[in-house]
Amino acid sequence: MAYNVTEKLISSHLLSGEMTPGTEIGLHIDQTLTQDATGTLVMLELEALGLDRARTEVSVQYVDHNLLQADSKNAEDHDFLRSACQRFGLWFSKAGNGVSHPTHMQRFGIPGKTMVGSDSHTPAAGSLGMLAIGVGGIEVALAIAGEPLYIRMPEIWGVRLTGELPPWTSAKDVILEMLRRHGVKGGVNRIVEYYGPGLSTLTAMDRHVIANMGAELGATTTVFPADDQVRAFLRAEQREGDFVELLSDADAGYDVTEEIDLSTIVPLIALPSSPGNVVPVREVAGRPVEQVVIGSSANPGLRDFAIVAAIVKGRQSHPGVSFDVNPSSRQILQDLTRMGATLDLISAGARLHQSGCMGCIGMGQAPANGRNSLRTMPRNFPGRSGTKEDAVYLCSPETAAAAVLTGAITDPRDLEELFDLTYPTVQFPATSSVNLAMLEAPLPLAEASQVELVKGENISSLPVFTPLADRIEAPVALVVGDDISTDEILPAGARVLPFRSNIPKLARFTFDQVDETYSTRAAETRDTSGHIIIAGTNYGQGSSREHAAITPRFLGLRAVLAVSFARIHWQNLANFGVLALEFADATDHDRIQRDDVLVLDGIREALAAGTEITLHNRTRNEDYAARQNFSQRQIDMLLAGGLISWLHERRAAPAHDRD
Amino acid sequence: MAYNVTEKLISSHLLSGEMTPGTEIGLHIDQTLTQDATGTLVMLELEALGLDRARTEVSVQYVDHNLLQADSKNAEDHDFLRSACQRFGLWFSKAGNGVSHPTHMQRFGIPGKTMVGSDSHTPAAGSLGMLAIGVGGIEVALAIAGEPLYIRMPEIWGVRLTGELPPWTSAKDVILEMLRRHGVKGGVNRIVEYYGPGLSTLTAMDRHVIANMGAELGATTTVFPADDQVRAFLRAEQREGDFVELLSDADAGYDVTEEIDLSTIVPLIALPSSPGNVVPVREVAGRPVEQVVIGSSANPGLRDFAIVAAIVKGRQSHPGVSFDVNPSSRQILQDLTRMGATLDLISAGARLHQSGCMGCIGMGQAPANGRNSLRTMPRNFPGRSGTKEDAVYLCSPETAAAAVLTGAITDPRDLEELFDLTYPTVQFPATSSVNLAMLEAPLPLAEASQVELVKGENISSLPVFTPLADRIEAPVALVVGDDISTDEILPAGARVLPFRSNIPKLARFTFDQVDETYSTRAAETRDTSGHIIIAGTNYGQGSSREHAAITPRFLGLRAVLAVSFARIHWQNLANFGVLALEFADATDHDRIQRDDVLVLDGIREALAAGTEITLHNRTRNEDYAARQNFSQRQIDMLLAGGLISWLHERRAAPAHDRD
Repeated sequence: MAYNVTEKLISSHLLSGEMTPGTEIGLHIDQTLTQDATGTLVMLELEALGLDRARTEVSVQYVDHNLLQADSKNAEDHDFLRSACQRFGLWFSKAGNGVSHPTHMQRFGIPGKTMVGSDSHTPAAGSLGMLAIGVGGIEVALAIAGEPLYIRMPEIWGVRLTGELPPWTSAKDVILEMLRRHGVKGGVNRIVEYYGPGLSTLTAMDRHVIANMGAELGATTTVFPADDQVRAFLRAEQREGDFVELLSDADAGYDVTEEIDLSTIVPLIALPSSPGNVVPVREVAGRPVEQVVIGSSANPGLRDFAIVAAIVKGRQSHPGVSFDVNPSSRQILQDLTRMGATLDLISAGARLHQSGCMGCIGMGQAPANGRNSLRTMPRNFPGRSGTKEDAVYLCSPETAAAAVLTGAITDPRDLEELFDLTYPTVQFPATSSVNLAMLEAPLPLAEASQVELVKGENISSLPVFTPLADRIEAPVALVVGDDISTDEILPAGARVLPFRSNIPKLARFTFDQVDETYSTRAAETRDTSGHIIIAGTNYGQGSSREHAAITPRFLGLRAVLAVSFARIHWQNLANFGVLALEFADATDHDRIQRDDVLVLDGIREALAAGTEITLHNRTRNEDYAARQNFSQRQIDMLLAGGLISWLHERRAAPAHDRD
Repeated sequence: MAYNVTEKLISSHLLSGEMTPGTEIGLHIDQTLTQDATGTLVMLELEALGLDRARTEVSVQYVDHNLLQADSKNAEDHDFLRSACQRFGLWFSKAGNGVSHPTHMQRFGIPGKTMVGSDSHTPAAGSLGMLAIGVGGIEVALAIAGEPLYIRMPEIWGVRLTGELPPWTSAKDVILEMLRRHGVKGGVNRIVEYYGPGLSTLTAMDRHVIANMGAELGATTTVFPADDQVRAFLRAEQREGDFVELLSDADAGYDVTEEIDLSTIVPLIALPSSPGNVVPVREVAGRPVEQVVIGSSANPGLRDFAIVAAIVKGRQSHPGVSFDVNPSSRQILQDLTRMGATLDLISAGARLHQSGCMGCIGMGQAPANGRNSLRTMPRNFPGRSGTKEDAVYLCSPETAAAAVLTGAITDPRDLEELFDLTYPTVQFPATSSVNLAMLEAPLPLAEASQVELVKGENISSLPVFTPLADRIEAPVALVVGDDISTDEILPAGARVLPFRSNIPKLARFTFDQVDETYSTRAAETRDTSGHIIIAGTNYGQGSSREHAAITPRFLGLRAVLAVSFARIHWQNLANFGVLALEFADATDHDRIQRDDVLVLDGIREALAAGTEITLHNRTRNEDYAARQNFSQRQIDMLLAGGLISWLHERRAAPAHDRD
């Protein structure tokens, strides 16, 4: 059978299921990637799992998100992550080494491998012919522990590229064109695979740009073939030995197809406040710009900085513009410096920041309210920059450089006339400045097992949850309506995020925008009967953050009865041992009030039989029917008290008892 | 008469008084320096003064302290400062251009000039033969408005340098030796003047190190002659035309004298948590180090970075060490890059941060609790790093570089054996990379007068205070005991500082560590009678922050009755129109209670006559006597409602009415 690249990647890692869109498949995972903002919880999960040693080929913990170190919590998170890497056999990429995605691609990416990462831009590794998927922390922890990844098989969306990009456009304009055509939901339940003759003109790092920001299409991931461009990339990285050719078969097909003629691409820009809000730069030219930021995993390559340096060389940033440059890695900064581009950037007025994500995730570089900020980054959701009324635009390095010089949104093609510039040709070093000194390799097992986790005052172990009881008799602590999002269950933001390594402290913020008495009242049930939440439709929509399941569970949540659930949150509740049931009759939702005591009996038997569960409202002396929709794996997990406890049980059991 | 350098500087700028230690003198001020953390208030004061145009030869507003931009407030402060510079005719040094002190020295310092700056390290300009003094914001505002600076004539402390520094020691060890000998109060009411044959071996930037950190001795300022080293510095800065020789007369004397034989200096280090806690590095060698930070105005020179680069070149930072490098200016980063030193630093694992103060003022780079951090910075007061239980050591670039390589406190002389290193000789470019593009020159007056101040939502104009009434009848809002510090009146820290441009918001924090009901109760008196505070001895000790006078005044404070005052706060109260009186009989303090209503009558007459003022306690029907100790200038200010209103009156009056 003729396979495209995606099918080759999946079939070579398929542990269960079939490659039919919508079917659950289990995949073997070769590599993992974690970053500091999500990694502390992953490491706490590994601790809770009692893992002795990572089972993956390569697992790397990067420190790139929070580098500001406004107080001691940040440095202590870094210490903890380092000790956890030593303990569990992971690579540790020190603060300053760089952003995970380009660094991983440069140092660890191998065509044909699978990877999960606790970061939504993990798909960037698809640039090398990998199948790389962003998932929640616990799923990364499980992959590190050697467990398969379960997903529903997506559709494969073949995008055929022809032609060649014109001067003053680059890969960023290609992904912006995809977003212009399809918006931020266009890729949901799809894997985007690029193919066709236009591919040969795109370097591996150009493809990184397209794969990275494919996350903004809502795609499961993006895949490129491993061809001569990938070979050339690995050669420059002094890793040609890692190259494996991976091409689609000649007559392979796709579930959906699309074509882009690269020669028709024009400079594009995403307006505030969505990556899907894309227009030609020329349509908004002339708007004043107060900040330009170059960097992030969306434009992380040497060329993305070097082209800006070449454009601004010998010129000066506009007096009213803050020109911020975030090198994506130490290696790229070394190469830029060797090439003379660092000097060109500084001389032109750049504020050269440390290597890392920085303003891309709102850690610094917040613009003034209402002042236009142009960024080569992947996202401009409202407030993500750290400024409430922000006005962030997303664009290519070329368009960003034009605004640096003019202080206004400017089609970079106009620089030819404005500054008598021809589109610069940049010469790159034949080999990169490979430098592994900020990457600590896993310790040998004998040494690793001696390492104690270094926990600062803000880092607490993951709580251990008890198995699901056969009978729950507990009060209703909260009744909510429809469309409650995980942001309402557990908020994000600078006020809450610093406590992400500390579930007890984090739990205090649970539902505080909905009912600020909840966390106190719920906590009182923690050591006794626990409590129940009643919800309407689409409960737990939005962000996939698993904290929204963990903190209510920590506060004593035993069951959620909802009219319906958002899929990921429903999974997360099961992962952390909370019974998530749907009302058989939606109108029962309105019959229950706060503080009513509900009784669920014979839970284990009903789960095993797959039957409805009866809820008795002791306060009102009423009965309601509730449906369940769990897989056997989920039932096992629930009974064990969640995924971690379940894995504990499996690991404790003799090998022949394991499935 | 034979004059030393200090006396030459003072006598050439003396407007009133005589050069006798302890006598008040008035000095003409040629230049001013402000930074963003204090500058916003200075600009609001200029607005309140109604200034049309800076009267100084050079006034420069730097943006160097808060560059993190964690939210919109920061960027909006920068916008405001830029617009204020355009409006009032100041130079504006854009974020990223660099730390005020070295940048000012490189671009604006001129031997023989006087300067005040709203930053305690302003004395660094003494390295060029300037008289440069750190003062409160309003005093800088007045200097910008062309008013004299009034200070008490300090003693002049001549420090004779002989010999030459041995390898592996540098200027930082010289000022650490002064701190080892004299502690943090050794220089109070003194100007330190260095002289002698050892001087010829210290470059102007070496002298900057010594003058800058002279602030830690408590000295009024530090002065060096303008000799051939200064000429060489200005030549390299392409400003040799600004050189003016300024040497002490052959037979000049000093009030106090001291000698340092440079050849006896050893590597020194200040232990946590005081710059005065100095010991030889060897005494504490071997302690583990988790962070090394290179930068700040205390070691800002090209050589301070280049020597570190030369030591770490071709080597790697210890895996457990975060190696943070804060270039002091864009110019110095350009020169480092030209020299290849930037590449050496990055290659060795440095986290290269943007040019600015950064961790030196606790804006980022906070270490983990209890983990040792070595810094080339000037201060290590407890918690200043942003970490509560910090352990910050201050040392030379050489000692810092040694710890980068070994991960422990290491006498840099031991590097010879440990790494087979000889003390590097660094070659510097003959001329610096002069680049004025991030410095905006003052606008022509016609244009300047059209500029509107750009005020973000967090920037509010300075309140206008009413003239002192002849009769005050007001309740006592607060009774406090002895030794209340300005930190207790108005706290600092990350919670409060962001509101420094916003007196109404800042005022809410007034006394909140002493009585959290004060600000609400006080505010209720604001539009009616105002209120009075009763205090014990030494009221207003500690930091000189003028906000501690402004915010209570904003809340309605009319008078403070204390047993005694700390000098600077007493002056600040007068500057902002609050009547500060001392009890004639200290025991009266205990007779007054909160909410008692006090009546002060015939205030204007009593002030004019210099007599005691009677306080009638209407609630208890008692009378107390209160003393005043104001100069005529202060009485005039008080009657006008404070310094700003007083200046308004003077400016409004016809020229012949002015003194």
